[in-house]
Amino acid sequence: MLKLVCVVYKRADMDTEDFRRYWRENHGPIAARIPGLRKYTQVYANAGPDGSPPPFDGLAELWFDDESALEKAMVSPEIEAASADNKNFLDEERLEIFVAEEAAIDPES
Amino acid sequence: MLKLVCVVYKRADMDTEDFRRYWRENHGPIAARIPGLRKYTQVYANAGPDGSPPPFDGLAELWFDDESALEKAMVSPEIEAASADNKNFLDEERLEIFVAEEAAIDPES
Repeated sequence: MLKLVCVVYKRADMDTEDFRRYWRENHGPIAARIPGLRKYTQVYANAGPDGSPPPFDGLAELWFDDESALEKAMVSPEIEAASADNKNFLDEERLEIFVAEEAAIDPES
Repeated sequence: MLKLVCVVYKRADMDTEDFRRYWRENHGPIAARIPGLRKYTQVYANAGPDGSPPPFDGLAELWFDDESALEKAMVSPEIEAASADNKNFLDEERLEIFVAEEAAIDPES
C-alpha cells in the first residue's frame, strides 16, 4: 500500500469549525470518488500537549494499492473535481503533497 | 481514540537511509514502550507525485485511548527515554507535536 499525504492549511477567512465541517461534509464525499482509493482519512490538527499551536490545520491521508493505481488516480476527472473544490476551504498556496511509506511498530507497553 | 502526531526532520548530518534505519530499528523499540500506547506508526516522507520534495522527513503517529492516557504517557519515564533519544537522529529544534482527531471517510470508487 502506498499513502498520499496532503498537508493542508485552512482558508484564512474561515474559522476552524467551518473549515472542518466543509472538509468533512462537502469535500470528503467528492474526494471519496477518486478511483483506486482504498482508504481515506482526514486528520484535524489541534494544539500540542503543551498548548503550542499545530504546524498546519490538517492532513488528508489517501491509500492506494501501488504506484500504478496512484498514477491513474492523479490523472482522473475525480481528482480534478476534488482539486477544483480546494479553493472553497483551503489556502491553496500552502497545500503540500507527498508520497509516504509506513511502518507499523507494535506497542510493547 | 486520540492521536499524537510528531512532525520530524532528520539530523542535517544524516542521510535519509541512515535516518530511517535509526528511527525504525533503534528509536522505534524505545518509543514502543511508552505506557498506554495503542498503535504506533512511522511515516517516511518521499517526494510528491510531481517530484517536489516533501515538507518534512516524516511523521510519528501515536494512538492513545483518551486524554487521560495521553497525559499519563507524557510524564512517564518511557517518554523521557524516547525524547532523550531524539538527538541521535532528529533535528530537535524543528520537532513539532500536535494532538489530532481523525475522521475515516469511506472510499466510493
